[in-house]
Parts: sequence; structure tokens; C-alpha cells
Amino acid sequence: MQTQSRRKVVIVGAGFGGLTTAQSLAKADADITVVDRRNFHLFQPLLYQVATAGLNPSDIAWPVRSVLRNQANARVLLGEVTAVDKAAHDVVLDDGRRLPYDYLVLATGATHTYFGHDEWAPVAPGLKRIDDATLIRRRLLLAFERAENSDDPALRRALTTFVIVGGGPTGVEMAGAIAELAQHALASDFRSIDPRDTRIMLVEGAPRLLGAFPESLSEVARRELTRMGVEVHLNAQVIGCDARGVTLQKDRIDAHTIIWAAGVAASPAARWVGCPADRAGRALVAADLSVPGSPEIFVIGDTASVKTVQGAPVPGVAPAAKQAGQHVAACIRAEIRGKPRPAAFRYRNFGNLATIGRNSAIIHYGKLKMSGGLAWWLWSFAHIYFLIGMRNRTLVAIQWFWNYLSFSRGARLIVGSDATSNDKAIKTD
Amino acid sequence: MQTQSRRKVVIVGAGFGGLTTAQSLAKADADITVVDRRNFHLFQPLLYQVATAGLNPSDIAWPVRSVLRNQANARVLLGEVTAVDKAAHDVVLDDGRRLPYDYLVLATGATHTYFGHDEWAPVAPGLKRIDDATLIRRRLLLAFERAENSDDPALRRALTTFVIVGGGPTGVEMAGAIAELAQHALASDFRSIDPRDTRIMLVEGAPRLLGAFPESLSEVARRELTRMGVEVHLNAQVIGCDARGVTLQKDRIDAHTIIWAAGVAASPAARWVGCPADRAGRALVAADLSVPGSPEIFVIGDTASVKTVQGAPVPGVAPAAKQAGQHVAACIRAEIRGKPRPAAFRYRNFGNLATIGRNSAIIHYGKLKMSGGLAWWLWSFAHIYFLIGMRNRTLVAIQWFWNYLSFSRGARLIVGSDATSNDKAIKTD
Repeated sequence: MQTQSRRKVVIVGAGFGGLTTAQSLAKADADITVVDRRNFHLFQPLLYQVATAGLNPSDIAWPVRSVLRNQANARVLLGEVTAVDKAAHDVVLDDGRRLPYDYLVLATGATHTYFGHDEWAPVAPGLKRIDDATLIRRRLLLAFERAENSDDPALRRALTTFVIVGGGPTGVEMAGAIAELAQHALASDFRSIDPRDTRIMLVEGAPRLLGAFPESLSEVARRELTRMGVEVHLNAQVIGCDARGVTLQKDRIDAHTIIWAAGVAASPAARWVGCPADRAGRALVAADLSVPGSPEIFVIGDTASVKTVQGAPVPGVAPAAKQAGQHVAACIRAEIRGKPRPAAFRYRNFGNLATIGRNSAIIHYGKLKMSGGLAWWLWSFAHIYFLIGMRNRTLVAIQWFWNYLSFSRGARLIVGSDATSNDKAIKTD
Repeated sequence: MQTQSRRKVVIVGAGFGGLTTAQSLAKADADITVVDRRNFHLFQPLLYQVATAGLNPSDIAWPVRSVLRNQANARVLLGEVTAVDKAAHDVVLDDGRRLPYDYLVLATGATHTYFGHDEWAPVAPGLKRIDDATLIRRRLLLAFERAENSDDPALRRALTTFVIVGGGPTGVEMAGAIAELAQHALASDFRSIDPRDTRIMLVEGAPRLLGAFPESLSEVARRELTRMGVEVHLNAQVIGCDARGVTLQKDRIDAHTIIWAAGVAASPAARWVGCPADRAGRALVAADLSVPGSPEIFVIGDTASVKTVQGAPVPGVAPAAKQAGQHVAACIRAEIRGKPRPAAFRYRNFGNLATIGRNSAIIHYGKLKMSGGLAWWLWSFAHIYFLIGMRNRTLVAIQWFWNYLSFSRGARLIVGSDATSNDKAIKTD
């Protein structure tokens, strides 16, 4: 392989999958380019903490350049990919630039979907990006401010009613965090309203919360949320969202703040490379995570559909994306050295965690099912451990510990403007 | 005074002046309402640290409700004041609501002015609000990203040239902080450009920097900045700002990033109450800080013009605003108890501080003039001491200490969108 020039590896997306691929190629004889439309890597599992004023954006996000600063064979490029020219072996950016590749790794993640009702997006924002989190934070905090300013009991009620659509981990975490914000952090801050009267509704279409967990843990989550004052509605189909509330098949809820935590749609990566995809748009990749017919193109993480050895879908979680990144890097390293690729990708499940609130989480690992305070401490340590970057790890730990002791929320700033907000009564800038 | 109902004190603005007034009235027999269009108190002296990715917004801002949480006689109202009805003794909000007052304290601060050239605002943002700071942070960081993506040497040069207009404390601090960002935090992050080649220009119309300090300290600041690689232009009049650069009377600088740190204009508080004002719009208040002819209305802080006993202007700094707040509270407290107001407001100067960069600051206190490393440590301690709220004090201290040891900048996130940005080549969301 000495006669060949250095291979060019282009990685699109600096999430867990893309970044792990790049880092696992640190010693490879290759030129690596990581392209992302954002300049930071985001620890999405804690985004709900930013949305509920528990953490700062920069506590859970790190400049990609810093992460790869000392990796000499890697460069970072801020840009938006719009297409892949498979014939020319080029990635095409929105400004027309082209990045030639020998290997292409697509790790572009997923977003939420409104099941064909994109018109709900402005009134029911999802939680995938930093800007989503600060938007939701602004709406949550402004709702209390507006309620404090209002003399109309019905309006006050609607302003202090929060509906979360979707009972997966994000929905459960959001519901729990809003309950704590209202009952503890904000409890003594107002004079006309009592934030403890806040109504929080978690709406799930399926018969139970947290479908990826065993039923007994779903029930623990439901019970815990109920104890915290959250109204859990199961088997409830949302048929409409508007600026004044949510319409369920059998009910109408007046609520000015709706948060969308349902429905996942993969990024368009499968379409870029003409790969067959499942209904959510996830690329149906081969056993080595490459695109059928294009062994030099890999799709990993939330934008790929992969099965475990037992035939179950590999979940869209950070550890799965990281493992996929390591596998792809191993394939590329092997081929550069003229060796065959390793055997098929195999997902190792290190357990499933979800937090419900202060001192309450659930853990599922093989036959182990755990819930309560100890599970919560394990959840905290696991998350802090995973937060790459020493500095953030320390700051997040301190901030959490402080929040834990004091029940307070420091990041309660209403900044920016919200063009899509449906109530402009109060100016925020 | 037993026959009279509880006095209503309305305080407009939750900056240093307004908040101190409210807190100093904690034991007064009065109903206090603090109105602000933002939900947080901002520690403006450190805003430049947010703009240069050294601190998070919430490190220097605290919800007003939290600050006044335990003060039973105070309530907080999020709202924008548009007028004062002196005849009715009402403050008028933009949604038409009216707040009756017996005493009114206007502490609405100041903003920057473009000396009649408001068309410069989109290309040369100032630094007064959190949103200004995150906008400038986004532009600074994006400029480096764009330069990394460009092949055109002249464009690269213009992208990595930063012009700061105004050589007061904010301008000096910004210039120093950008120099450190470029030379340390970003130094190893790029592959095509070397951030150490960054050109930073500080443009001041007067013959020296930091006009409020003694000449010898101005010269220290100029020398220090020059040593850090900042080009200091004195006696330089800006006659134009556009998307491609700055036009000076005798020069043209190609620069895509301009920061405005010149010119102060008071808020329109003087106009609301028909008070005579100086050229910058500052209310010319009486010796007790009340509006001539309206002893129940006070104007304090950056929006008032006050003279010291020696006839010099009281500077627009936090300690001056706090002292004014204490004085006004003392006047109100005295009258509620049926006693005369205390003697005229007297400003006590506890010294003047400015930082230039890592390990370099200047201090002026009476006959004491100090500069260098020790001054920097004193500056740091003074600022951390002043940061109200234990939690933030600890976090800021840790973050600074970490930045000091590691030269790194954690808050380097490009978020939001910048509608007024003149170069859309790179999308950030």
C-alpha cells in the first residue's frame, strides 16, 4: 500500500458516532476531515437540563476543534453538506465546495418529526439542538412571568399548564425537571401566583411510558411522576396543537406551552447516497455498517438502522453510536494496512438509564432492574463520566451538586427573542 | 404617619442602582415593585468575558426574582416602561398597565450611541446586553471559521482583522481578551490559518486610552496592549463603518468584525419625567438625586448626571450606582418615618480598576497607581467579591482559575442566527 497516496476520510457529523470515528483513526495513515454545520459537539442526553435552566449550554457542548486539537491527521470544517456525488467520490457543501473522499462516514443524526403535521412545530418545539433548549427555557420562564402579570384566572391556568407530548426518556425527563423547577426552584419567587399549582401533563400514545424499558420500570416511572404532581395520560393520541393548547382524541387541554418529545426522523443521509431506508429514513446498512454496493461509504448512529444479533433494533443512544464509530474506524484501519475488515458490527448493551427527577432514576441492564435513589446516583455518575473534557465534568458536577443541595436553578435567563411565540404581551429584549 | 396607607415605591430597572434601592428598603414600611424588561440582573463589567467566550451568560446574570425572593415587601414585574404620568402618579407599561407610585426611582441605565450614525449598528454591535455579548461571540468565532475555509489571502486577512472602536475600559478589555483568545485559546485549533496572525486594532479618538485614569496608567495600558499584539490607534476619528471595514479620517481598515465600545447615551428616563438633561440624555438631578420640582421622583445610576463635591462628574460605574441607591432608600425611609431627608448625596470613590489581559490590570485609588500582575489579582478578587450570589461566585472563580491555568476558553459556542450578519457563506443553524 506504500504506492498509494494517503487515504482521505470524510466524516459528516461531530456527534458521538462521527467524533468517535475520527478519534479511533488517530494513528491511521489517513487525512481525516470532520464536517459539521455546528462548531460544537453536543451531549444531547442532558439537553433537557439546559431547557429547564439546570445547566448552561456550554456545560454540555465542546468546540469540535478543541476535541481534535491534538490529533494531527484530523481537520475540522464548519459547513453544511447538501449532497454526495458518489460517482466523483465527492461530498458537496451548500456553498458549492467539494470534499473528495476515499472513505465517507455519515453520522448526521436524527431530528424529531411531527408525523406530517409540521405546522405544529412553532407551537410545540422539540428538543434536539442548543437553540431548541434555550427556546424552551425562554418559553417556560416567560409563561410564569405572564401568569404573574395576569388577572384572568383561566389565562393564568393555561399559562401555568405545560404539556409534554411523548413518554420516551426525553418526555419523562422534561416532565420531571419542570415539576422540580415549579415546585422547588421557583416556589418562593412569585407574589401573585404559586408555581406549585403548575399543571404538568405528559401525553403518550402507547399504553405505557418508556417503551424501551421493562414494564415494571415503566410503571415505576409513571408512579414517580404522579407522586411529583405530573398528570400522566397514556393511550392518548394528539390530533392537534395550537397556540392555546393541545387537542387529544377525547380531550382538550388549554396550555400555552407545549413541548414535543415524540417521533424521530433520521437525517437525509440515506437519500444522499441512494441507500434503502426504513420508514423513519434510517439507512438500512450492511452488517459492516457500509452502504450496500458502496463499501467505502458507512452510515452510523441515529441515521442508520442496525439490528442486534438477536434481531432487535440497536437503540439510538450514545454508546451505540460510539461503538459503531469504533467499528467503522477498525474497518478503515484494516483496509489501509491491506487487511480484510473485521467481522460484522456487534452491539454490546451496557444497560439503559433514564432519570425521572431528583433522587429518582431507573436502570435496566440484563436481568438487573433498579430504581430510586441509588439508581439516580448511578445515573449521575454515568453521565458525568461520559461528559468528555475535564473542565466540563468538574463544572457540571459542582453545578449539579449545588442544585441538589439548594434546589435552585442558576441558568434561569430569558434571552433572545422568540419570533414564533404566540403571545407578545411581554417584550424580552 | 399611622393614618396613611403603606407607601408604594416603584423602581424601574434592576441594575446595580435599582436593586440596591430595593434591598436598602427591605425593612421599610412600604410596598416595593421592581420593574425590568429583563428577568435578570446583569453584572455588566464582565460582559466582555461572555463576548470573548471566557464566561457563560448565566455566570454574570441572576434572576431578579431570586435576588429578592426573601424580601417580603418587594415584588418583581417583567415589563417595559414607556412613560410616566406625573399628574396621576402612575408608571405606564407598554401593554397599557399602570403602576401607581408614591415614590418613583428611575434606574434605567444607558446604552451606546453611534453619534448620529445608527446605520453603523448592524455592522458594529456594542456591548450592553447579554444578547450583544453572544452576538459578538458568534461573530468572533465565525470569523475564524470563515478564514479557515477561505483560499483568498485578502479575504482571510479581513476576516482575521478585528477593530474595536473606543479606548475606554470596555474597548481596552475587549482588545486584550480577543488577543488572548487568538494567541492562546485558539492557537492550535486550526489547520489552514494561524490565529496568532490575527490583527486587532483599538481605535480611540482622544490622544490617550482610558481617559478616566491618570496619564501614566493610560500609557501602561497602551504599552501592555502593544506588547500583546494589539495595534493602538490614538487621535483616530472613525468616519464610516460598513460590512467590509472601518474608514478612519486618514486610513481604511479592511475588517469583517467591528465592535463598538464608544459613546454612551442615557435611557429616556429624563424625558419621561420632563427633567432637564445633559447632551448624553442624563437627567440633571438635584443634590438629593430627585427631579427638580418632583421630590418624589429620583433618577440614579448611568441615567443621571451627578457631580462630586469637587465638581467632577460621578463616573458611570457600579459602586456609584449602588451608593446612589442607598442614598435614595435613606431619603424614602426617612420620609416614611416623618423625618427629613439626609443631606445631599456624596460619592465616595473606592478606586478605579481596569483589566488589560491575563496578569495585567491597572488600579487608581487616590494617590495610589498600580499596574501589572498584583493589580490583576486585585482586580479579579474585587470582581469576584462583587458578584452577588454564592453559587456564581464559586463558578466564576473556578472557571477563571481554570482558564488562567489552561489558557482555554470553554464557552466557545456558536449558537443562534445572526440576521444582520453580512456574510452568509456559513450557516450556523
